[in-house]
Amino acid sequence: MQVIPPALEKLIENLTLLPGIGKKTATRLAMNILRRPPSQARELARSLVDLHDSIQLCSCCFTFSESDPCDICAEPRRHADIICVVEQSADLLAIEKTATFRGHYHVLHGVLSPMDGIGPDEIKIRELLARVANGTISEVIIATSSTVPGEATANYLTDSLKDRPVKLTRLACGIPMGMDIKYADKYTLAKAIESRSTAL
Amino acid sequence: MQVIPPALEKLIENLTLLPGIGKKTATRLAMNILRRPPSQARELARSLVDLHDSIQLCSCCFTFSESDPCDICAEPRRHADIICVVEQSADLLAIEKTATFRGHYHVLHGVLSPMDGIGPDEIKIRELLARVANGTISEVIIATSSTVPGEATANYLTDSLKDRPVKLTRLACGIPMGMDIKYADKYTLAKAIESRSTAL
Ligand SMILES: [Zn+2]
Ligand SMILES: [Zn+2]
Repeated sequence: MQVIPPALEKLIENLTLLPGIGKKTATRLAMNILRRPPSQARELARSLVDLHDSIQLCSCCFTFSESDPCDICAEPRRHADIICVVEQSADLLAIEKTATFRGHYHVLHGVLSPMDGIGPDEIKIRELLARVANGTISEVIIATSSTVPGEATANYLTDSLKDRPVKLTRLACGIPMGMDIKYADKYTLAKAIESRSTAL
Repeated sequence: MQVIPPALEKLIENLTLLPGIGKKTATRLAMNILRRPPSQARELARSLVDLHDSIQLCSCCFTFSESDPCDICAEPRRHADIICVVEQSADLLAIEKTATFRGHYHVLHGVLSPMDGIGPDEIKIRELLARVANGTISEVIIATSSTVPGEATANYLTDSLKDRPVKLTRLACGIPMGMDIKYADKYTLAKAIESRSTAL
């Protein structure tokens, strides 16, 4: 006998695909959604569909944006010659919140991880090298996470860019080892940006 | 300047309406959904819309169901003369998992909470009294949570039913005070059902 209605089972199953949502949490969320007015579920559904419909990658920095170029790349008062390289758009948002950095970004959309088949071509590394190659960039701040793959990615970038006439810097110590930078509080992160050091 | 695209902001806002999802978790979930294929977001959206479209309340026990009467009320081998009264459909699911109880249910969809304006008419109490009044019920097991409003609801039901020719029982002690029964492990819950006591 079917105790959980199939439509509820299906929603629970789809919710468990989200990070950090187990079967128990998914069931609790789904039951809660079921108890609320249908309009709320419909509203949430609409925003899920709109998400990918309205948001693409900026063709310059590859962050998620509703316009191309994104607002950051299009802003004339920002320093277009300084690029801060981050793993994900979430890291960009965390840095923007500090209001410390006034340059541009480059979102890699991942880190190198040979074990998982993620090499330089699977993330936006080639695109970063092309941006630097066109000669208008004076500094590349490598702001990958202080995790093993984050460090490996930073080292790969340092190696690939060391012969270019650009200053290569890393975020300063201050972010605890092993912490994903998007979870750092904004003061720590601001400090790490201010006291960034040369990568080589 | 708009750093978070509006479509992302909207999804984050809708996600924070869910229980236990704060701004930080909602942002993490939304960014994660954005990084995955659009088909996954669409699939989740579809299951959200289907949820209320496919599921209604059983007109007999008021649990959420895709059929009316629900599978439990329609099952001929279950004991229709014993009603287990629960706060929510989630409690019913928890009890069904124990495979200990073979009677019917009655889902109140809430607890009495005068401070929040929730009186007997706001939850399915009138409907329960009507089921008992038609004379075919021999036992009512009151399985509300051992919380203050859960106890108040149990007391109200005991008072309302004490003059009826039905046995009134409560789940046995065994469920820790203050714990919502849907979070009890199934062995504790099975034991509590087996050693249920008379309510008066
Ligand atoms: Zn951009
Ligand atoms: Zn039913």
